[in-house]
Amino acid sequence: MLRKLKFAKPEDEYKDLGLGTKFSEQKQRIINRDGTFNVRRVGIPRHLSFSIYHELISMSWLKFNLLVVTSFIIANLFFASLYMLVGTNELSGLNVSQGISGFWDAFFFSGQTLTTVGFGRVSPIGFEASIIAAVESMMGLLGFALATGLLYGRFSKADTKIIYSRNALISPYKGINALMFRIINARKHQLIDVEIQVVFSRLEILDGHTTRHYYNLDLERKGVSFFPLSWTIVHPITEDSPLKDISLEDLEESQAEIMIIMKAFDDTFAQTVHSRSSYLYSEIVFNASFENAFVNIPGEKTKFDMHKFHAYKKVLK
Amino acid sequence: MLRKLKFAKPEDEYKDLGLGTKFSEQKQRIINRDGTFNVRRVGIPRHLSFSIYHELISMSWLKFNLLVVTSFIIANLFFASLYMLVGTNELSGLNVSQGISGFWDAFFFSGQTLTTVGFGRVSPIGFEASIIAAVESMMGLLGFALATGLLYGRFSKADTKIIYSRNALISPYKGINALMFRIINARKHQLIDVEIQVVFSRLEILDGHTTRHYYNLDLERKGVSFFPLSWTIVHPITEDSPLKDISLEDLEESQAEIMIIMKAFDDTFAQTVHSRSSYLYSEIVFNASFENAFVNIPGEKTKFDMHKFHAYKKVLK
Amino acid sequence: MLRKLKFAKPEDEYKDLGLGTKFSEQKQRIINRDGTFNVRRVGIPRHLSFSIYHELISMSWLKFNLLVVTSFIIANLFFASLYMLVGTNELSGLNVSQGISGFWDAFFFSGQTLTTVGFGRVSPIGFEASIIAAVESMMGLLGFALATGLLYGRFSKADTKIIYSRNALISPYKGINALMFRIINARKHQLIDVEIQVVFSRLEILDGHTTRHYYNLDLERKGVSFFPLSWTIVHPITEDSPLKDISLEDLEESQAEIMIIMKAFDDTFAQTVHSRSSYLYSEIVFNASFENAFVNIPGEKTKFDMHKFHAYKKVLK
Amino acid sequence: MLRKLKFAKPEDEYKDLGLGTKFSEQKQRIINRDGTFNVRRVGIPRHLSFSIYHELISMSWLKFNLLVVTSFIIANLFFASLYMLVGTNELSGLNVSQGISGFWDAFFFSGQTLTTVGFGRVSPIGFEASIIAAVESMMGLLGFALATGLLYGRFSKADTKIIYSRNALISPYKGINALMFRIINARKHQLIDVEIQVVFSRLEILDGHTTRHYYNLDLERKGVSFFPLSWTIVHPITEDSPLKDISLEDLEESQAEIMIIMKAFDDTFAQTVHSRSSYLYSEIVFNASFENAFVNIPGEKTKFDMHKFHAYKKVLK
Repeated sequence: MLRKLKFAKPEDEYKDLGLGTKFSEQKQRIINRDGTFNVRRVGIPRHLSFSIYHELISMSWLKFNLLVVTSFIIANLFFASLYMLVGTNELSGLNVSQGISGFWDAFFFSGQTLTTVGFGRVSPIGFEASIIAAVESMMGLLGFALATGLLYGRFSKADTKIIYSRNALISPYKGINALMFRIINARKHQLIDVEIQVVFSRLEILDGHTTRHYYNLDLERKGVSFFPLSWTIVHPITEDSPLKDISLEDLEESQAEIMIIMKAFDDTFAQTVHSRSSYLYSEIVFNASFENAFVNIPGEKTKFDMHKFHAYKKVLK
Repeated sequence: MLRKLKFAKPEDEYKDLGLGTKFSEQKQRIINRDGTFNVRRVGIPRHLSFSIYHELISMSWLKFNLLVVTSFIIANLFFASLYMLVGTNELSGLNVSQGISGFWDAFFFSGQTLTTVGFGRVSPIGFEASIIAAVESMMGLLGFALATGLLYGRFSKADTKIIYSRNALISPYKGINALMFRIINARKHQLIDVEIQVVFSRLEILDGHTTRHYYNLDLERKGVSFFPLSWTIVHPITEDSPLKDISLEDLEESQAEIMIIMKAFDDTFAQTVHSRSSYLYSEIVFNASFENAFVNIPGEKTKFDMHKFHAYKKVLK
Repeated sequence: MLRKLKFAKPEDEYKDLGLGTKFSEQKQRIINRDGTFNVRRVGIPRHLSFSIYHELISMSWLKFNLLVVTSFIIANLFFASLYMLVGTNELSGLNVSQGISGFWDAFFFSGQTLTTVGFGRVSPIGFEASIIAAVESMMGLLGFALATGLLYGRFSKADTKIIYSRNALISPYKGINALMFRIINARKHQLIDVEIQVVFSRLEILDGHTTRHYYNLDLERKGVSFFPLSWTIVHPITEDSPLKDISLEDLEESQAEIMIIMKAFDDTFAQTVHSRSSYLYSEIVFNASFENAFVNIPGEKTKFDMHKFHAYKKVLK
Repeated sequence: MLRKLKFAKPEDEYKDLGLGTKFSEQKQRIINRDGTFNVRRVGIPRHLSFSIYHELISMSWLKFNLLVVTSFIIANLFFASLYMLVGTNELSGLNVSQGISGFWDAFFFSGQTLTTVGFGRVSPIGFEASIIAAVESMMGLLGFALATGLLYGRFSKADTKIIYSRNALISPYKGINALMFRIINARKHQLIDVEIQVVFSRLEILDGHTTRHYYNLDLERKGVSFFPLSWTIVHPITEDSPLKDISLEDLEESQAEIMIIMKAFDDTFAQTVHSRSSYLYSEIVFNASFENAFVNIPGEKTKFDMHKFHAYKKVLK
């Protein structure tokens, strides 16, 4: 049965997730493990929803490189056709190549113009061809500026990689229980001023309507100045916690999901980065605690062993 | 009659709009729907108010492209004239083209130098022409660096697009009324940590002077962590609200305007973005509520239907 | 006589100016009108204090351009000498120019290599010259990347221009007096979330030592969401104000200075900008109020007339 | 003996350092003087921990330059081999150089293509060579875009340089003692809104386990608006301080370390910068106070003398 829980405290509202209460029939998780949302929007006109920069910066490297190469080829085919149109006699040095027809020679001349390499074996001597070559070299400069700008933009985009422990655990903690999970910054570059928000979400029946509700979970600590090793996020299940006395069956029946939002400052990229993830009810393990992954050998640097990052052991209640 | 409302609470002052009380005679709205201001400034010397970067980054693409092409042509005309001035005998390979006069050949040579394509059919052999060509190629590099920098700067500028519902509604809400409007992020890229401020502005008569006053409206929630679908902003019209018992006639007589300021972090562009809009008294609808635009089909992803975004239905009071 | 004022409140300490109490003998102002500091540091090793990027980005345009041109010339002289050293027979096409000696031809060839324009009339045929040309073209690419990066970096640097009214006034205000000054954003681009801090600084004698003290002045409003026209900053001289009952003579004797720190978000440049200024005791006018610079003509847009920005009129006490 | 100190106040927890209590056996300091961490992580797969951008932006200039030059040479060797493979008869102008074999001529031609200098003495005339040259010039543009982007990215990276006084002192202060250290911004560019956090860390024995504990130290001022000269950070050792009545022996026995985290806005680079450092117990000097480094000569600008920055003198208790 879906019990009604007490509402989140007013001061929690500021950090509302903005997901709304309408997620009632969706059997899938709302936030995927990789932080994307499991929702759809329909009816937004493409000229409004489409952002060409966003597409070009977030497509795969394979697609991006194919796009650059294809554009280069198409541009050359286009300009080669133009040169053929105004006549091959407007290009000096054409048709002297070994085994290259006039069109392909114009094609390669176009390539040398677009990239501004300009060998000069072939060069424009007619008025129209000269104009086309001038326009082409300018467009080459501008076009390659976009391509190389995007290339570097993609390359220098913050590539923060936070690893979340495979499971969230309900572990014994200072006489009570606590919900715990671990995160680690996979990259070598430091994250600074890390803040985390953990939200418990579940379906509830109110006045006969099934709606989704959200509860901020109080954390042992909401943020850390930096974390060179790993950080275990702890929500003590006190009397005030919405997880108080909850069972795995409750979680499953109410389609419970623990949502996590992380915000930090990446020192290498000098920008604020975000990470999202979630634990579905089936990824929460009761009566288990994380294995110690710290290695303290006297006289050596303190080590964190990633191999034990996801590991936990069952504890007797 | 323009009644005097009680003043906004002191703690609201921090978020003062900075518009001042002098907007008394303006019949037009103060903030346009697109977020620009309906005001004028006179007397600021042009060398102070003019920011060339701002102009170049915010002009239309048509204007920008025309400017780039025109500058390229003018620069080439200028340098061609220089080459003609020092004498065509300082350029080897000139005047051998088909149907191109010396000037145009110098013009195209200049183009090949500015873009650094440098075919080399024409090349400088005299001292002066060599100097001009050296200067030109350097200026070409610097000039095109500016042009391409601006091109990419324009291209990679955050293009956040927030759609505001056509009307703000006075709807029934938890036993009282509430002012409501909806916003949606038209783009596919996520907005994070969205904060909103809603200000009610109206003319009031104080000591015989008509001045404009501003009141922050308390919101059900001032911010959300993200909003993948739409967000309905709600101002409950409690006893403390400046909208308490107000009628459409009151709003019109006092030239009322609801001003909205939004701030968010755009994850794709990794920068803080702002959006402004306003509802004039004539865009506020009494006794109406928004139609449900969420579609929940069991087993499918939750959908938001944009076609119903602006739709509302009248409700009996 | 330098009276001891009561200390600033503890909560003000956070916004401490960081100037210290040691500014006791300096007759000049501490912060200049343009926001620079009137202090000196000695003994910091140059390799620590010198930041080449800072120098290059903040030097005047004249200096920057001269530096670019000079570097270009010196690099060409250097590489021309190298080509002469390995022998002119390693460059094909040399010495055929009209009236150009071999050195200058090598000089211009170097220029064409550095800018990658590469006409090809002169080209390397020997091994050593080919190596030098390869190195030179690579260094040209890298060097011009730095130059054009800096050029665009300078060009796209936020050029916020805040104008402060020439004088700060002690004006009648709601039955008491208030310290007032006006600021205006000279640029057309919007400033958002503007915050201001005003600090009153004066010399005081404590235990026979003359030290400088700082007092945060409470403002009518500490910030505005935006200010499309002008903003009058008001410090009401209440019973708690350190300016209570102070006279022009007091200000002069204690070398008083009103320091202003402004912080805002520039929407065009998408970055946080800062502005500083100060009013020395001699720039504070008692018993005066600013002239109204707003023009309200019914049916027209509200105008702000910059010509009246600095204007004030004396008021009878 | 490692006494148990009272816990830090709850409100301090937000600024938790994120270091954890596991640093119990490490004899070395945890944070080095230069702000790096003395810890190790093992077992993180290289494809997760490796960030190519981070490597390229943070490697030494020597390494970076070597990498660029080496890549250029390897790319040219590769393309030269390709040209040899398709046959030297596909390149016109080859083998006419003085003392250069066909391979090296192809090598230099490749260099001229990659950098787009394209002299044209050698140029592709066959189909395959033309294709290779087209691909090479495109890859040259893209490759050099990455190299020059990184070059400028490295060059324009905020190079904030904070100098921390060599020692932290326990000095007499307003009737009690205080922990003090000085910092100075070595660069000429201004730091704004400087915030500092000082954490006292030591080993403690709790229930027979030796764990490391962290205490935020209350500061006289946690931040300054700017500091054009130097800033002395002061932690008054009040009754509430964890340093109350502590001796040098206590500090040594408990492996005490004072950790410092600084955050500021760099005006030249328009970005938030961070600095970390620490004082190990052996770098804390009891009963000493800093020498005055300010020079006040009437009529001159106030000077700060860096030579006295680290200097302190012993004081009688």
